[in-house]
Amino acid sequence: MLVNLEHLGLAVKDLEAATSLYTSLLGQEPYKREHVASEAVDTVFFQVGGSKIELLAGTSPESAITRYLEKKPAGIHHVAFEVDDIRAEMQRLRAEGFTLLNEEPKQGADNKLVCFVHPKSANGVLVELCQSIKEPGVA
Amino acid sequence: MLVNLEHLGLAVKDLEAATSLYTSLLGQEPYKREHVASEAVDTVFFQVGGSKIELLAGTSPESAITRYLEKKPAGIHHVAFEVDDIRAEMQRLRAEGFTLLNEEPKQGADNKLVCFVHPKSANGVLVELCQSIKEPGVA
Repeated sequence: MLVNLEHLGLAVKDLEAATSLYTSLLGQEPYKREHVASEAVDTVFFQVGGSKIELLAGTSPESAITRYLEKKPAGIHHVAFEVDDIRAEMQRLRAEGFTLLNEEPKQGADNKLVCFVHPKSANGVLVELCQSIKEPGVA
Repeated sequence: MLVNLEHLGLAVKDLEAATSLYTSLLGQEPYKREHVASEAVDTVFFQVGGSKIELLAGTSPESAITRYLEKKPAGIHHVAFEVDDIRAEMQRLRAEGFTLLNEEPKQGADNKLVCFVHPKSANGVLVELCQSIKEPGVA
């Protein structure tokens, strides 16, 4: 079961301009910045109640965010749901017929194990499952 | 200040098919269905932690959702943030330079007063502010 809307990921072209804009919109400063080398993205996080807004900018031409923005306008890139047991949820969703974009959970931003569900499986929405890593490197 | 990510609105073509799909994805049944005559939409709501997923299907050719789906694929239509005082937030955002799509709060789904911020103001994201109506018809 998906227990919370953990965050909304926004693809942005200019991270500094978007950070300034979302600071104004949300009425608060971001609480974290993180470079995720494995995904070639720079991220900025805002906490809004029990959920987060994650701004994402690509740092190389091969970044999924850079490639996304070559085809689509800036905007909502994905929605991430918190799960307690990512492997059990991946197994449940596979059995329900959803297409997963990775076979095994992978390390994502914000100290999480993550897995993506193909947008064609989910009414055009790129869905991320994420599970907090209690001990670094251990699921 | 925006106090919570209240809901994510998804534009769908076939409400029954999308409801079935999101019931499988989220691992739970929807808790509410509502027809919003003023917007010409049928809605289905799921509760996920402190936030909601709202499926939206147009019920007339003039519905904003029907017109949206003539130009864009099904997917995330808007993100709604809960506010305590919608008029104060509208005034704050106008002063910050954001373009609001309505001058006054209007009645939305789920017993809320709502106001939309133009996507061009918010990095391509259609943002909704919403305030729960304590007494029906009174802000």
